[in-house]
Amino acid sequence: MFSYEVVKVCKQSGARIGRFTTPHGVIETPVFMPVGTMATVKSLSPEEVSEAGSSIILSNTYHLYLRPGHETVRKAGGLHKFMNWSKPILTDSGGFQVFSLSTLRKITEEGCEFNSFIDGSKHFISPEKSIEIQRALGSDIMMAFDECTAANTSYEKSALAMERTLRWLERSAKAAEGAENQILFPIIQGNMYKDLRIESAKRTAPFAKCGIAIGGLSVGEPKDVMYDMLENLRPYYPSDMPRYLMGVGSADCIVEGVARGIDMFDCVLPTRIARNGTAMTMHGDLTIRNAAYKEDFAPIEEDCDCYLCRNYSRAYVRHLINCDEIFGGRLLSIHNIRFLHRLVAKIKQAIWEDRLLDFRDEFIAAYRVK
Amino acid sequence: MFSYEVVKVCKQSGARIGRFTTPHGVIETPVFMPVGTMATVKSLSPEEVSEAGSSIILSNTYHLYLRPGHETVRKAGGLHKFMNWSKPILTDSGGFQVFSLSTLRKITEEGCEFNSFIDGSKHFISPEKSIEIQRALGSDIMMAFDECTAANTSYEKSALAMERTLRWLERSAKAAEGAENQILFPIIQGNMYKDLRIESAKRTAPFAKCGIAIGGLSVGEPKDVMYDMLENLRPYYPSDMPRYLMGVGSADCIVEGVARGIDMFDCVLPTRIARNGTAMTMHGDLTIRNAAYKEDFAPIEEDCDCYLCRNYSRAYVRHLINCDEIFGGRLLSIHNIRFLHRLVAKIKQAIWEDRLLDFRDEFIAAYRVK
Repeated sequence: MFSYEVVKVCKQSGARIGRFTTPHGVIETPVFMPVGTMATVKSLSPEEVSEAGSSIILSNTYHLYLRPGHETVRKAGGLHKFMNWSKPILTDSGGFQVFSLSTLRKITEEGCEFNSFIDGSKHFISPEKSIEIQRALGSDIMMAFDECTAANTSYEKSALAMERTLRWLERSAKAAEGAENQILFPIIQGNMYKDLRIESAKRTAPFAKCGIAIGGLSVGEPKDVMYDMLENLRPYYPSDMPRYLMGVGSADCIVEGVARGIDMFDCVLPTRIARNGTAMTMHGDLTIRNAAYKEDFAPIEEDCDCYLCRNYSRAYVRHLINCDEIFGGRLLSIHNIRFLHRLVAKIKQAIWEDRLLDFRDEFIAAYRVK
Repeated sequence: MFSYEVVKVCKQSGARIGRFTTPHGVIETPVFMPVGTMATVKSLSPEEVSEAGSSIILSNTYHLYLRPGHETVRKAGGLHKFMNWSKPILTDSGGFQVFSLSTLRKITEEGCEFNSFIDGSKHFISPEKSIEIQRALGSDIMMAFDECTAANTSYEKSALAMERTLRWLERSAKAAEGAENQILFPIIQGNMYKDLRIESAKRTAPFAKCGIAIGGLSVGEPKDVMYDMLENLRPYYPSDMPRYLMGVGSADCIVEGVARGIDMFDCVLPTRIARNGTAMTMHGDLTIRNAAYKEDFAPIEEDCDCYLCRNYSRAYVRHLINCDEIFGGRLLSIHNIRFLHRLVAKIKQAIWEDRLLDFRDEFIAAYRVK
């Protein structure tokens, strides 16, 4: 049901192109996954997400558990049917959201007690509960329930969280047994401590059947620290399955991540900044509210093939964003998602040509100009 | 360039089916026009508006004058190109908005001084200015600049406003001379006074080349008063051109209006209530937030062919609206616009069958059940 085939390794960087087969279709890696937190990629239709080039989306277990409730989604026939998305879906475990969004959380060996960010009601999620929810949602890829620590956490606390994550992984794996058409990705933790990360990678790998994730990065540390950690971890991933760097999706981090052996990325960034009026381009971000674009009737990016760039001008998008018109954020969301897929296409091309490190240097130089 | 042909008159009601030819295409009447105030039908793409069945949209002169400015739209190549809508556009005169949205307005014979609702800046719109703006926008149908009075205005003040509207009409018509591919609709005023309305209709008709409008109704008066006024006005319209009842677009008012000889309607209602979670159906409005729909996996309306009803359940739309997800309002906007076009199609069918009054009675009885 799930398989992964490496079809090309870049001789310059070791980066891979792969084909990841899932019950809802084949995903070419490297891949960027847009985020549909509430069973919708904010403001977009599934058709638009698909037309922008997306082959898989991420949705959030924590949010769907609270609203509309996983049992409702189960009764609807699963998340794919509920939200009218027929391609693969990855659901996170809810762990990160419990730690970052909830108040009055209480972590015990059993799991995590928290108050809903919506109405303050009390809830409890354990590894078993997280997998139960994800099974009800029917995502193709489930994530193990982990304890994610902030960037400034001490060595001792990070070690304890890593150990607990490994114990929770055993329980997650047990709870996932027998799930049809669903696979579990285990998550490497260990904060910013290289030895903890390596320890975690070694002990996590045996649980990885067709995919492994790196969690707890991009949580406040400088980017160089993250890149360094990816280099450090690189020898310890299983080679025959995709590696997913959780919550990372800026253009530079994707390029740098692929160059360090990463295959899968997700981030709310492209759609979040879109709604604030920021367009991503190969030369850096463009703040469409700027007066410079008032009578600029060129497309956002000349060689972009997205729905926005084919049909509308910078001046029109600026007008919509300035008037708080929903269609403006929607157009920029399409553009930004398409931008990341176009970037990944360029990355793939560079991998085919065994020159990803050269491409990385060229891209970063051009991207930071603005 | 503009022509109107009546193709069928209902023997029971006198209601008409017509073909209104404009530079951007033929509009079949009766017709409902969705409103794209800011050069966007809120949350929707032009393709979605078109696919929902719309053959013409309305846009607002007052808003586009303030943002992005009519000169910007002119430089963009006109409103059609700016917003990527290739079918006909009707622009209002800005008069109604000056009176309803602005503060510190000062009306003189010359025109109207007002403060922008955005930043308080001072502006002045006269009949000449209104037409200048509408010519820059390049709408197919321009509206004359009129003085619209509230429902409770005295006879004397209403008479003065009606007279001023007629003087402003002369100036609007003069300003519109030589406009290519654009036509001017004059507007009948006179508040709720039958003799003023008839007087206005008689003196307005000579300015009507291929269309006449009824303004200043649905401004707070009971619906029966409006229907009565439409009956009163009916003998005085030119017969060989469309009659446009401004700002009216609830389902019952459309049915009652067509039965009284009206051909064109516009209203923000269907899209505004959509964003608040109200779905229009042939049996009345449906408040999708209601708990009853939590696990209701049926479409909003069984026999509706809109994008929402073909692909999503009430439960999904309820979830989106409850989570303030933009896609929820977008889906309901598509449905509600499609609903009004489906209603108009039913009205046309009844006209073809010479039974519009029967249809009206059946529809109103069913529509008010809920």
